[in-house]
Amino acid sequence: MTVDRVLPSAEAYDLIELVREIARQELAPLAAEAEAAEQFPRAAFTLLGRAGLLGLPYPERWGGSGQPYEVYLQALEEIAAAWMSVGVGVSVHVMACHALANEGTDQQRDRYLPELVGGELLGAYALSEAQAGSDISGLSTKAQETDGEYSLSGAKAWITHGSQADFYTTFARTSDDPKGGISCFLVPASAPGLTFGSPERKMGLTASTTATVYFDSVPVASDRRICAEGEGMRMALSALDSGRLGIAACATGLAQAALDCAVSFARERRQFGQPIAEFQGIQFMLAEMAAAVDTARAGYLLAARKRDAGRPFTRDAAVAKLVATDAAMKVTTDAVQVLGGYGYTRDFPAERYLREAKVTQIFEGTNQIQRLVIARQLLR
Amino acid sequence: MTVDRVLPSAEAYDLIELVREIARQELAPLAAEAEAAEQFPRAAFTLLGRAGLLGLPYPERWGGSGQPYEVYLQALEEIAAAWMSVGVGVSVHVMACHALANEGTDQQRDRYLPELVGGELLGAYALSEAQAGSDISGLSTKAQETDGEYSLSGAKAWITHGSQADFYTTFARTSDDPKGGISCFLVPASAPGLTFGSPERKMGLTASTTATVYFDSVPVASDRRICAEGEGMRMALSALDSGRLGIAACATGLAQAALDCAVSFARERRQFGQPIAEFQGIQFMLAEMAAAVDTARAGYLLAARKRDAGRPFTRDAAVAKLVATDAAMKVTTDAVQVLGGYGYTRDFPAERYLREAKVTQIFEGTNQIQRLVIARQLLR
Amino acid sequence: MTVDRVLPSAEAYDLIELVREIARQELAPLAAEAEAAEQFPRAAFTLLGRAGLLGLPYPERWGGSGQPYEVYLQALEEIAAAWMSVGVGVSVHVMACHALANEGTDQQRDRYLPELVGGELLGAYALSEAQAGSDISGLSTKAQETDGEYSLSGAKAWITHGSQADFYTTFARTSDDPKGGISCFLVPASAPGLTFGSPERKMGLTASTTATVYFDSVPVASDRRICAEGEGMRMALSALDSGRLGIAACATGLAQAALDCAVSFARERRQFGQPIAEFQGIQFMLAEMAAAVDTARAGYLLAARKRDAGRPFTRDAAVAKLVATDAAMKVTTDAVQVLGGYGYTRDFPAERYLREAKVTQIFEGTNQIQRLVIARQLLR
Amino acid sequence: MTVDRVLPSAEAYDLIELVREIARQELAPLAAEAEAAEQFPRAAFTLLGRAGLLGLPYPERWGGSGQPYEVYLQALEEIAAAWMSVGVGVSVHVMACHALANEGTDQQRDRYLPELVGGELLGAYALSEAQAGSDISGLSTKAQETDGEYSLSGAKAWITHGSQADFYTTFARTSDDPKGGISCFLVPASAPGLTFGSPERKMGLTASTTATVYFDSVPVASDRRICAEGEGMRMALSALDSGRLGIAACATGLAQAALDCAVSFARERRQFGQPIAEFQGIQFMLAEMAAAVDTARAGYLLAARKRDAGRPFTRDAAVAKLVATDAAMKVTTDAVQVLGGYGYTRDFPAERYLREAKVTQIFEGTNQIQRLVIARQLLR
Repeated sequence: MTVDRVLPSAEAYDLIELVREIARQELAPLAAEAEAAEQFPRAAFTLLGRAGLLGLPYPERWGGSGQPYEVYLQALEEIAAAWMSVGVGVSVHVMACHALANEGTDQQRDRYLPELVGGELLGAYALSEAQAGSDISGLSTKAQETDGEYSLSGAKAWITHGSQADFYTTFARTSDDPKGGISCFLVPASAPGLTFGSPERKMGLTASTTATVYFDSVPVASDRRICAEGEGMRMALSALDSGRLGIAACATGLAQAALDCAVSFARERRQFGQPIAEFQGIQFMLAEMAAAVDTARAGYLLAARKRDAGRPFTRDAAVAKLVATDAAMKVTTDAVQVLGGYGYTRDFPAERYLREAKVTQIFEGTNQIQRLVIARQLLR
Repeated sequence: MTVDRVLPSAEAYDLIELVREIARQELAPLAAEAEAAEQFPRAAFTLLGRAGLLGLPYPERWGGSGQPYEVYLQALEEIAAAWMSVGVGVSVHVMACHALANEGTDQQRDRYLPELVGGELLGAYALSEAQAGSDISGLSTKAQETDGEYSLSGAKAWITHGSQADFYTTFARTSDDPKGGISCFLVPASAPGLTFGSPERKMGLTASTTATVYFDSVPVASDRRICAEGEGMRMALSALDSGRLGIAACATGLAQAALDCAVSFARERRQFGQPIAEFQGIQFMLAEMAAAVDTARAGYLLAARKRDAGRPFTRDAAVAKLVATDAAMKVTTDAVQVLGGYGYTRDFPAERYLREAKVTQIFEGTNQIQRLVIARQLLR
Repeated sequence: MTVDRVLPSAEAYDLIELVREIARQELAPLAAEAEAAEQFPRAAFTLLGRAGLLGLPYPERWGGSGQPYEVYLQALEEIAAAWMSVGVGVSVHVMACHALANEGTDQQRDRYLPELVGGELLGAYALSEAQAGSDISGLSTKAQETDGEYSLSGAKAWITHGSQADFYTTFARTSDDPKGGISCFLVPASAPGLTFGSPERKMGLTASTTATVYFDSVPVASDRRICAEGEGMRMALSALDSGRLGIAACATGLAQAALDCAVSFARERRQFGQPIAEFQGIQFMLAEMAAAVDTARAGYLLAARKRDAGRPFTRDAAVAKLVATDAAMKVTTDAVQVLGGYGYTRDFPAERYLREAKVTQIFEGTNQIQRLVIARQLLR
Repeated sequence: MTVDRVLPSAEAYDLIELVREIARQELAPLAAEAEAAEQFPRAAFTLLGRAGLLGLPYPERWGGSGQPYEVYLQALEEIAAAWMSVGVGVSVHVMACHALANEGTDQQRDRYLPELVGGELLGAYALSEAQAGSDISGLSTKAQETDGEYSLSGAKAWITHGSQADFYTTFARTSDDPKGGISCFLVPASAPGLTFGSPERKMGLTASTTATVYFDSVPVASDRRICAEGEGMRMALSALDSGRLGIAACATGLAQAALDCAVSFARERRQFGQPIAEFQGIQFMLAEMAAAVDTARAGYLLAARKRDAGRPFTRDAAVAKLVATDAAMKVTTDAVQVLGGYGYTRDFPAERYLREAKVTQIFEGTNQIQRLVIARQLLR
């Protein structure tokens, strides 16, 4: 079903229309097979980049589209509804550009940003470590400066696009101060000393490569440090706020896809002499699923509007992420249920949606971390 | 806590500020006592009317404020957060003006609307009957025409403001056709033959009078019929769509009040040597409550924006009502829990909030009916 | 509906039959009015005492019935289904006898127990304090010994039967050791210096008096101390384990009553031309309510069987309390929903059930405390 | 963790001990690999059969163990906790023996039962069809009698052990009467005309083969018809009642395994300087998971005790199935969450548990069908 959207400009309606076409015609048909084969969809990102869809929220000056988050996120939702791994990839890429785009010097932006948001390069966000997942202040990757150059050593775990990305926005410790000693670097994939673990064998999102990134005295030029030393923690948290909105939008798209799948099955499947969509028990389930999807969307949109209006949105982003990803888990689980035995087979996408939904409750801050973020804002 | 709102105009920010002041200074202090005494707050409506707050979404030409629903509903939320019975009353009044304002002739609007939206008169919405609650097509109140005048006979049950209102927007049967035989009339409280049952003894919302309205051959002039004969069902459903948004906003306000109460208690109350707000278990509860409140608000706002943009919003209104009222029930129940034994006493407002929340899942279409509405839209 | 029960003896079947008769014929008819009038049902306890129902789980040697907990709790469930305040009162009374019956000397038991379990006297359990609700180790009521007599000073808050009971099983501090300095005393209501606050104005369970008990140098003879000094904490926790099973049984009974009310309404109430019980949406609700009730019962029964078998049951009791009281809240809330507008009025018992259910999530250890108890057992 | 069980006899304690040993030493170590390889565990069933664990609830006269359901189900729970596919397989086998064991003539039982319950043969239960899943009365497989022999034609879908079993308890139509025309047959795997579809590609339970069974004029001797013609529907429903208890026990075991996995991870995994098990937020999650597991177990045990006492247990079995399988889905989902990123990988069993849990809400009557069964019992 085509989602009826309220958008702020005619241009935005055109943009969404374009995204829908690409999503349905170019992405959706490839998803099932690539996920089963665990094949990274590099071509899909190239396609999106060429269509100008990898830099939607960034300034036109550097090749972006200058769209408000309210629009970018709805485009992202459409992509994720067609292929979750690609939606998540776009969100991660946009997050990987966040520090540079928002806090880089003009020199840095002129030099690096156009190819990032222009879609020639694909980014990764290298923050978490095996012993520092939820606890950023515990990270131990080191960046030692000598002769105007940094040398990075350590390991970053659970990195989406690890081994596939062209650049890694990397957070490393330039001093021992737990929170104040973290800095941010833009590391190219070609840097010597950069290696990768074998891809994680995940429950879902199998086409999206997740791997450990190893830094063995990787040299990084000083002008690839974004912002001052010690500003990394603040920048990481800020990027996460925006990144959570991306995940909320992806989760909403995934839930919408699962709902559509369930509605269309329920219209066709007959039991006791009629389509099961005519049973009130099924109708109530579908209605609750729809309510969850609509509400997930409303939640990220309100947060995005706050962001677009320049207001604080940390709590709103955490709420949006929590609610949308819980909705995705609930709706995909119920979609499998509506399809019954068929839903439990790999012949229908419902079971894949469920497997993909689970990770959204975990990454970019587990939903337990979101609760802490919300509580902290509430109790200030 | 003051809710951070995104509003479409500077005027709207001023309006919300005004509403907050009145709500906190004039309404909130009176609520507990009036609810305990089961005293209808007529003066509160007069005050709101004089401040121009009873006709917010209606055209300025007839004394309204011409505000978009997005603004009206947020004002309503603030009122309900201070005093639920008054919030619900405003919503009902606005719904009672809906048919006239939207479908009356200019002659009818010139004649009747200014005193309705100007706040001199208070309205009621007389649709449901004892044997036709969820099932509108089953209503049996009759309107018989003779000599250019209608005569109404029957009984309307569960009427908010029954016996307190100045006019009753009444739906009655002008023919036997179940759906196509219903018409809409504007009946003044002074009409002969109009009498009222004793107020319902309710679990909560006790200051808001709910009563059966009896029509015993009540004469109603033909020019008080809104729109053509047989258009009543359509108009009733249309008013309900908008009215559901009002209830969603009220429920959100109520939930916000309960959350505020819980947060403030949790900061003060100490157990095991520290404020209970420092226990992660309580923090997670508060965070989930906040997520529910924020999401309820986001839901009705997205629906309102669709309404303001002139797009269909029937499904969105049903979702908003379902989600916001379930949120109100959950959040008020948990607020009592956060307050523990104190929450169970009438010394704190939490238990009253819970009692008030329950009815929101029931009136203006039970949440079971909302599911049917959503499913119908989904399966079209 | 009559619940089909599995009982361990023919005698137990007879006992349950007797309890049902008394509950339905003597208790149920009086409940609504006494609750509305906030009238303590002293006569009901006398009646139950005379019928031998106040000492069911205690040894026959001292006037009890020697029934296993598995039977006692099912009897209690039947009482609570008829009148929650009385069910809770019986549970509290049985808990108040727990220390004496299980740990008193034979001399103490010969002297005090027969009138307690024989039903002439009614007990209260004086443990919690305003500043020490969930945190027992924080209690500050003092018991100072001089000349072979104790003098108790302090205040006990939220005491069920406060001012109505004939004896108060009281926990007071005989040393400063937070956990090891608490002792247990059997204080008669007639003790000089014992006074009571005015009854709490509660949301529900209004016939059951809850009040603060003030101890102003109350003299208590040394032979009224149960067990050694410092054993109070252990005894309090042990009594709570058993007491939680009582609350679980009461909550189950309350939920059963609400389910019965909803089922019977749904059979009668017609909408859209048929009893609402024929709509699948309502059937699913009723089925989920029934599942919650049955499961609550199964949970306390399994815990009781462990207790009867002499096995540890602390975790099981906490689970039973948590699950049964959450079930009661859910089922009573849904029962109001099934009754719709009628359910929201005081003309039907559903709204009262809901108000009564809420406290079960709070007293005898809030459900947050139950989670801590369960987690502690799980992580040992 | 070893579950503390209340059992009715010393023999039962020994039996459970034996099952635990086999489950932990012989089954658990093989599960992960066989599931990944989608390899049917025939050897496991042979092992269990030799240990006398495939006929636990059946009479000793024919090689069973004569255990009450209360014991059989707890043994089954232990097996499923070690390896879900094997647990489900045992439950299906026991269900496949149900008709013969309970309603076969002594001649039939003497002839066929010993090898079934003795573990030499493995059974399947061939009831559902592609167009008659939830709706048994819609089944169309035909059994035509000629010359004292039946000829079966049709297709049975979603058959657990399809192509692996040695005999198929098959329900086929001997007349057109929708409910009254179904009969039950014991069909050996070697019967000519019996063929199998390729195994379903399922989301989980991948070692357990599920396939369509095709009957192409399969000859079945008359003495392989269990009970009279037309008794099939009744027998199928009766076997399902018992079978649902088996599924409830398996789901409980699966949930227990997931809980154990989460508890053990939470003790080890450190974040913010301490094991995550010390955070109250995690403790509350674990406590709720434990409550769900304990309650699922209590639910099936109460139902089993009713069955063992010869009382009706249709509602209880449906409740037990509904509650235990929903618990399994919730607990396994939360277990993945507790493990965070690790939980999402195939390096830990949590994600497999989740995939296995989903089918329990679907097979042997979807949980929507269970609600209908419960409602029907409730509204009789």
